[in-house]
Amino acid sequence: MIEPRTLKGFRDHLPAQALARERILDVARRVYRSYGFAPIDTPALEYLEILTGKGSEETDKQMYRFTDHGGREVGMRFDLTVPFARFAAQHVHDLGLPFKRYHMATVWRGENTQRGRYREFMQCDFDTIGTTSPVADLEMVLVVHDLLAAIGVGGFTIRLNDRRVLAGVLTRLGLADRGPVVLRSLDKLGKATPQAVAAELAGHGVAPEAVAALLEMAGLAGPVDAVLDRLESLGGAVEAGRQGVQALRDITAGAAAAGVAAGRIAVDPSIARGLDYYTGIVLESFLDDLPALGSICSGGRYDNLAGLYTKQPLPGVGASLGIDRLLAGLEELGRLEMVETPAQVFLVHFEADRRDDYLRIAAALRAAGLAVEFFPEAKRVGQQLKLAAKRGFPAALILGGDEFAAGKAQFKNMRTQESVVIDWHGDLPVLVDAVRSLITALGVG
Amino acid sequence: MIEPRTLKGFRDHLPAQALARERILDVARRVYRSYGFAPIDTPALEYLEILTGKGSEETDKQMYRFTDHGGREVGMRFDLTVPFARFAAQHVHDLGLPFKRYHMATVWRGENTQRGRYREFMQCDFDTIGTTSPVADLEMVLVVHDLLAAIGVGGFTIRLNDRRVLAGVLTRLGLADRGPVVLRSLDKLGKATPQAVAAELAGHGVAPEAVAALLEMAGLAGPVDAVLDRLESLGGAVEAGRQGVQALRDITAGAAAAGVAAGRIAVDPSIARGLDYYTGIVLESFLDDLPALGSICSGGRYDNLAGLYTKQPLPGVGASLGIDRLLAGLEELGRLEMVETPAQVFLVHFEADRRDDYLRIAAALRAAGLAVEFFPEAKRVGQQLKLAAKRGFPAALILGGDEFAAGKAQFKNMRTQESVVIDWHGDLPVLVDAVRSLITALGVG
Repeated sequence: MIEPRTLKGFRDHLPAQALARERILDVARRVYRSYGFAPIDTPALEYLEILTGKGSEETDKQMYRFTDHGGREVGMRFDLTVPFARFAAQHVHDLGLPFKRYHMATVWRGENTQRGRYREFMQCDFDTIGTTSPVADLEMVLVVHDLLAAIGVGGFTIRLNDRRVLAGVLTRLGLADRGPVVLRSLDKLGKATPQAVAAELAGHGVAPEAVAALLEMAGLAGPVDAVLDRLESLGGAVEAGRQGVQALRDITAGAAAAGVAAGRIAVDPSIARGLDYYTGIVLESFLDDLPALGSICSGGRYDNLAGLYTKQPLPGVGASLGIDRLLAGLEELGRLEMVETPAQVFLVHFEADRRDDYLRIAAALRAAGLAVEFFPEAKRVGQQLKLAAKRGFPAALILGGDEFAAGKAQFKNMRTQESVVIDWHGDLPVLVDAVRSLITALGVG
Repeated sequence: MIEPRTLKGFRDHLPAQALARERILDVARRVYRSYGFAPIDTPALEYLEILTGKGSEETDKQMYRFTDHGGREVGMRFDLTVPFARFAAQHVHDLGLPFKRYHMATVWRGENTQRGRYREFMQCDFDTIGTTSPVADLEMVLVVHDLLAAIGVGGFTIRLNDRRVLAGVLTRLGLADRGPVVLRSLDKLGKATPQAVAAELAGHGVAPEAVAALLEMAGLAGPVDAVLDRLESLGGAVEAGRQGVQALRDITAGAAAAGVAAGRIAVDPSIARGLDYYTGIVLESFLDDLPALGSICSGGRYDNLAGLYTKQPLPGVGASLGIDRLLAGLEELGRLEMVETPAQVFLVHFEADRRDDYLRIAAALRAAGLAVEFFPEAKRVGQQLKLAAKRGFPAALILGGDEFAAGKAQFKNMRTQESVVIDWHGDLPVLVDAVRSLITALGVG
C-alpha cells in the first residue's frame, strides 16, 4: 500500500476551494474580455535558457529544472512574464500591435514553505504591449478597478505612483545616481519608523534636507489633487518629474470620466515596485478591511518586454491578480461562501421505481438552466438530505409515491429547513417554473 | 540574444486557439456542474511512487521525472486518473460518498511526437465514485450526450458496450481464460479485414465456430434492440452476459426517458477499452462526419479506483473529453470559428480630444454586458479598422467630431462592411440600447 500524500508545499483543492477559485477566475476572464484582452497559453516547460535569461539569482535558485528525455535542459515556468516575453518575440508578426492578452495559469517555485508560501500557485496576468499610449495605462487602472468590484471584495483602494516622479525628486535632490540605495531604504517605511529610515539614509551620506524631502514625499497621503500639487513642488522642476505628475493627473481624471468612484484611487508616492523593470505608472491594490494582506493586484508600465529575445522594442503596461493571496484574504474576512457543490437543487431519489420520472424532471430543470444533482441510489431520505446539507445545497426537491399520485412536490430550503409544497398536477412545465422561481427567490440562481 | 522557441512537442496557444479551447472548457464546466459534479484540482507534481504505482511500462517511460531541491523523486502527472485515485484515498472521509468530481487540467507525456502527438495536453475528466448504482452509469451517458450537444459538434454517436457481455460470450465459448489474446485480435478489426483477424484467432487455437461467433458479435450493428437480442443469444446464458445485456437495455431506456434522441446512442460490441481497468459499461463517442478522428469522449465503470492507496473499495464510473482531439476535428470540419478577439465591439479612437467621451461610452456598453475594445491611440481610422478586421471583430463603432456634434454614431458590420447610422442625440442610454440590439441582430451577443 502506497501512502496517499502530496509533496511539501503542494496542496489539493477540494470542491469548496476549487469552486471559490473558479468563481474568481471566471470573473477575471469576463472582466479582461470586456476590455478586449484575449487569452493565450504557453507551455509549462521551457528551454532553461529562456527562463534563466532574465531571472534574478533568487528565481534561478527556486526554479524546478531538469534534463528531459532528449537531453534538453528544461525548467518549469516560475511566472507568466518571462514566457509572455518569449511568446511576444516569437509571434509578434502574427499577432499585430498593439496586442492585449490575458493569461491565467499555474507557476512553480521551490520556495521556502516556512513563510506560508506554496510551491505551486496561479497567476492571472493581463498586459497591453506595443503602445506607449497613456490610454493603455489608464485602461490598466480601469481593469483592476472593475475586476475587484466584480469579484466583490468589499472596499478596496488602488494606490498609484509613477516611477518618473521618483526619478524627478531624486534628480532635484542631486541623488539621480543613488536611486537603488535610496529606494531600498524608503521601502522599509511601514516596517521601520521614519526615524530609523532617516538614520539609514543619513548613513548612506544623504544630506539632511534631502532626507526630509524624501520622507515627506514617501509619506504624502490624502486627497489626490493635494498630493499631486505637493509632488509637483517636490519634483516637477525636472522634466521626468513633471511628466510623472501629469500622467497621474491624467489617469485620475480619466478614471473619474469612466465612472470610478472618488476614493477608490489614491496617489501613494511610497509605491516603487522594484528597481529595474517598471519605468512609468506603478500600481498596487489593497483590501480596505485587511491592508496587511499586502497588494492583491499589482502592475505598471515597462519600456521593453522582450529585449532578450528580439530587437523589436515592445513597451507595455499590465498587472497581475494574486488570486491565492486574495482567496486567503477573503476567507480570513469571512467573505468566501464555502459550499462543496455547484448545483442548486438536490433531487432526492425516493422511489427506485420512479427513476425515469426523476430523470425527466432533472432533464427539464437542467433545460431551464438549473444545476441539479440526482442522488444515484434510493437510500433513506434522511441520509440523502444529510449529505445534501453537508455539501451546502441551497434546496432539495422531494417527490415520493404520494406526491406523484397527488401531483405535488416538496421544495425544501436547506438553510432554513422550511418546506413549500408545489402543486404541479403532473404538468412538468408547471413544476419547472415553480422550482425556478423558488430558486431565484433564494438568491442562488 | 536568445532565440525565442518552444520545446519539441510543446506549443503556444495564440488567441484564436485559446478562445476556441476556452469556449469548450466553459461548456464542459457548465454541463458537468449541471449534474452536480464539483471541481477539484491536484498538483502537477507528485511523489514518483504515487505516479508509478499503477502505471504501465509505457507511461513510466513517458513520464517527466526528476529529483527536486529537497532530494525527493518527483514526476509530472501523465493523466488525471492516478492523481484522482491518490486524492480520493487521502480525502474520502472529508468528501463523503458518493462523490462526483470534474477535473480539467494539463498533463505531460514525453511521447514520440512523430505521430502528431503533443507532449502537453489537457484532459477534462468527470467521475462518480463510491456507488455501484446503474443510475450513475446512465448519468455518465447523459453527461457525454449533453456535453457533445452543447459544444455543438454536429452529429455524433455514443457507442456503448458492457465488459460483462464480452465476458459472457467468452465464457460460453470456453475462452474465459483467453480474454486478453482474443480482445487484442478483435481490437484490430477496422484496421485489418475480418478474414485476417479470423486467421489470427485460429492461429491462437480458437475453434472455427468460436471464431465465427466472436466475429459476429464484434460486427453487430443496427437498431439497439436487435443488437441486444442477438447479444443475449450469444452470451446471455452466462450470468455475467445476462447482467451486461440487461444493463445496456436499462441505460438505453433511461436515456430515452431523459430525452436523448433515438440514434444518438448505439450498442457496439466491438468496444472494449483496454483489458484491465474497466469492469462494466464502456463508452466511446464519435463525430458522424469524421469517425476516423477516433473517440472524442470515452469512459466506463471500474471496480476499484484507489486500491494502491487505500483498503476502502472505491467503485466508480466516469469519462474523459479529449479536448485537443476534438478541437483538431472541429477545425478539420470547418466548425471552429477562429477569431482572435473575445470582444464584440471595436471602438475606434477617432479624436484624441474626445478620450473621456469614448471612455464613458465604453464603460456604458460594458455595463450593458458587451465586451468593447477601445483602441489606445488616435491613429488613422483605416489602420484601426484594418486591425479590427484581421482580429475578427464583428462590429466597429465610429464617432468622430461630426458624429458627436450631430448626436450620431456609425455602427459598422465588419463582416459585410455595411454601416448603420445610430441617432442617439447625445443620450448615452439610447446609444447603448441601439448597439446592444444591433449586436444581438448579428448573433454575437
